[in-house]
Amino acid sequence: MNEHTLPDALRYLIAARRAETTGLEALAHVCTLVTQAGELVHALQKERGYSNVYLAAEHASARETLLAYAADADVQARALRQGLERLDPAAQATADKARLLTRVAYVLYRLDELPALRRRVLARDLDIETSLAHYTRLINGLLGLVFDAADTALDPEVTRALVALFNLMQGKELAGQERACGVRGFAAGHFTAPQHAQLAQLIDGQDRCFEAFLAHAQPPQQAAWAALAACEAELRQLRGMAARTSPDARVDAALAQIWFDVQTARIDGMRAVEAELSAALPALCQARIARAHDDLDNHRRLARQLAEPAAASAVLFTVQGNALDAGAPDLAGPMLSPQLSRSLLDLVQAQAQRLQALSDALAGARSSLDARKHIEQAKQLLMAHHTLSEAAAHDKLRKAAMSRGLKLEEFARQVLAAGAGGQA
Amino acid sequence: MNEHTLPDALRYLIAARRAETTGLEALAHVCTLVTQAGELVHALQKERGYSNVYLAAEHASARETLLAYAADADVQARALRQGLERLDPAAQATADKARLLTRVAYVLYRLDELPALRRRVLARDLDIETSLAHYTRLINGLLGLVFDAADTALDPEVTRALVALFNLMQGKELAGQERACGVRGFAAGHFTAPQHAQLAQLIDGQDRCFEAFLAHAQPPQQAAWAALAACEAELRQLRGMAARTSPDARVDAALAQIWFDVQTARIDGMRAVEAELSAALPALCQARIARAHDDLDNHRRLARQLAEPAAASAVLFTVQGNALDAGAPDLAGPMLSPQLSRSLLDLVQAQAQRLQALSDALAGARSSLDARKHIEQAKQLLMAHHTLSEAAAHDKLRKAAMSRGLKLEEFARQVLAAGAGGQA
Repeated sequence: MNEHTLPDALRYLIAARRAETTGLEALAHVCTLVTQAGELVHALQKERGYSNVYLAAEHASARETLLAYAADADVQARALRQGLERLDPAAQATADKARLLTRVAYVLYRLDELPALRRRVLARDLDIETSLAHYTRLINGLLGLVFDAADTALDPEVTRALVALFNLMQGKELAGQERACGVRGFAAGHFTAPQHAQLAQLIDGQDRCFEAFLAHAQPPQQAAWAALAACEAELRQLRGMAARTSPDARVDAALAQIWFDVQTARIDGMRAVEAELSAALPALCQARIARAHDDLDNHRRLARQLAEPAAASAVLFTVQGNALDAGAPDLAGPMLSPQLSRSLLDLVQAQAQRLQALSDALAGARSSLDARKHIEQAKQLLMAHHTLSEAAAHDKLRKAAMSRGLKLEEFARQVLAAGAGGQA
Repeated sequence: MNEHTLPDALRYLIAARRAETTGLEALAHVCTLVTQAGELVHALQKERGYSNVYLAAEHASARETLLAYAADADVQARALRQGLERLDPAAQATADKARLLTRVAYVLYRLDELPALRRRVLARDLDIETSLAHYTRLINGLLGLVFDAADTALDPEVTRALVALFNLMQGKELAGQERACGVRGFAAGHFTAPQHAQLAQLIDGQDRCFEAFLAHAQPPQQAAWAALAACEAELRQLRGMAARTSPDARVDAALAQIWFDVQTARIDGMRAVEAELSAALPALCQARIARAHDDLDNHRRLARQLAEPAAASAVLFTVQGNALDAGAPDLAGPMLSPQLSRSLLDLVQAQAQRLQALSDALAGARSSLDARKHIEQAKQLLMAHHTLSEAAAHDKLRKAAMSRGLKLEEFARQVLAAGAGGQA
């Protein structure tokens, strides 16, 4: 019995399940890309850090070390590019991929700039700030790729894992920026007012990231995180010392090394949790794909039963109809026995119900990404309206939310609603 | 210059735009299906109405008239089936289509039951209630197809039009049910308590549908609607009379015919607005597709410029970069002139910004569908918890919302949050 002789309802039911399965297989590949992006981010974070060292002081071996870091990053970049080719830009992609493909275009544009950036760093033709800004922009592009992967995945369980992973990666990047900012402040003996504001913003950003990470992670990663967080007493002490410094209240410059070591240990710990989370992604995708294939087999079994009317009495499906159909008993279709007809209806209704539940769960898993988008948009609005720096806009937003007893994202939504109203 | 020799960023940018264009073309076909579903709904509403007449009384010509209505509906059903074949269930569909395909499976299952239903109606082997329930279930399935089309469309303008169309169709269906309920009440001289509750629910449901329709329709349809609404004085009078009837306060049974005529004129008016709205869909889709093709041409023009470095100075793109990139000046990529490189970056950023704006607008256009889903889910929850009928659950929900000064959807969300909390 080929599919064209099946009842129409069953053909479309099988098509729907196959569409889901195809989507899950594509998602499994996107998860691979996310892992590769994470590796590249980690390599670039090291290269960025060492570029600062190289630009700050003339070491004999510094050039070779920097080239070695760059070579490591290139290995990861090549792996990512190869993975991206499998997204197959020449093939007919589907509309839901437009955002991810555009983000890929941005990342590749920034990756193509990397050789020129490195030439200028090696020639010491850049100051530290500019070098930092360029590396950070590329890293942010890669983190954006992970964000878009999380925000466009169509499976709630995989979305949860990607949301956890994105927040961990983003928090780790902010921790790296905090490390760099702290090294400069401690080395100078005190922090300037803009540095105080930047530190506060970076700490606040990390708190939000790790809170979202914990809310979406599985118990093993939550446990790994709890072990890390238990070692943060020293970090809190150092942060407190940094906050109390001023031109009139200086500290020993040797604290810079202690700060660097504490933050590095912490970031390495985060990297270990990140690797664990990434490693769990393929199994998660495969489990979802296997379940989808089982369902497809279930549909095909019904198709075979329909081909052998004599065997009809052996069919027994356990899926239940839902409440949508209350109110009228069923009429047998023109070509099916009542029992087979009921089985088909049960399958259709179970699938409709399952897709609705998936869609609700997906909305839930994505809600923290929405919160993040709203905060970013509100910040952009404040920056544009009051010509503020990003740190100043963040500070303004945070203080205004606190004074109103609102969560940051709640207040951000109010700012956006008011802003949209003002423009309308 | 074929696409494989282009800068990677441009290849992915073109792929993203092509993906959008493909999606819009698929959406244009879904809009055709929605129009066909609307025609079939209208034909089935007539067939349902006449089935009641046939089952209620023995007219000489009733059988032929009913068969003629059924033949009309079959013409529309065949057109819809042919349109559905173009969704091509045998092809590799994409994951975002799973929900629509499942809904199609349900509709086809119910359509396959139609011949059996008609045989029983013709044999007068069914009472009016049962016949009504079966036709209504099929019509609801078709309206669900329109709902899912609106809820899965990826373009905000088309989504707005589909949301308007769905609400108009749904409101028209509720008006048809109100007409049938009113005919029975007036013919009996008074309405029973369950009939009073049903009328209240149907009127409330229509109000919500038409409010949502007006919020999403374009000025021409809003104007057409205003003309219709101006003729509702008689309707309001009749509704008031119906509400005041009781076993002790009867009215003249001749009101049944007046009620029927007033409601029929109103429904015909709705049908005219619906046809206008449907007719505007293809042009809307074509305009969006044409814009997408223009953008694709823009990208390809850049591709040609890249192939002719001598002509580079002639390139001038008007798109502007966005704020994402503030903070670091650009480095020329390794293979492009600074000017071409900047043009490419502008295109990437303009596209990212446009997709974000589209996604925000899409969320806005879909929000009334979410409200509808939440109200339905809250109703199901109340029906299950308190073993209520749908009308009673709706009534309970509406009164509780009013007593709290909340909109129905706001209170529904609270009910769902409390319900989910109770189950967790």
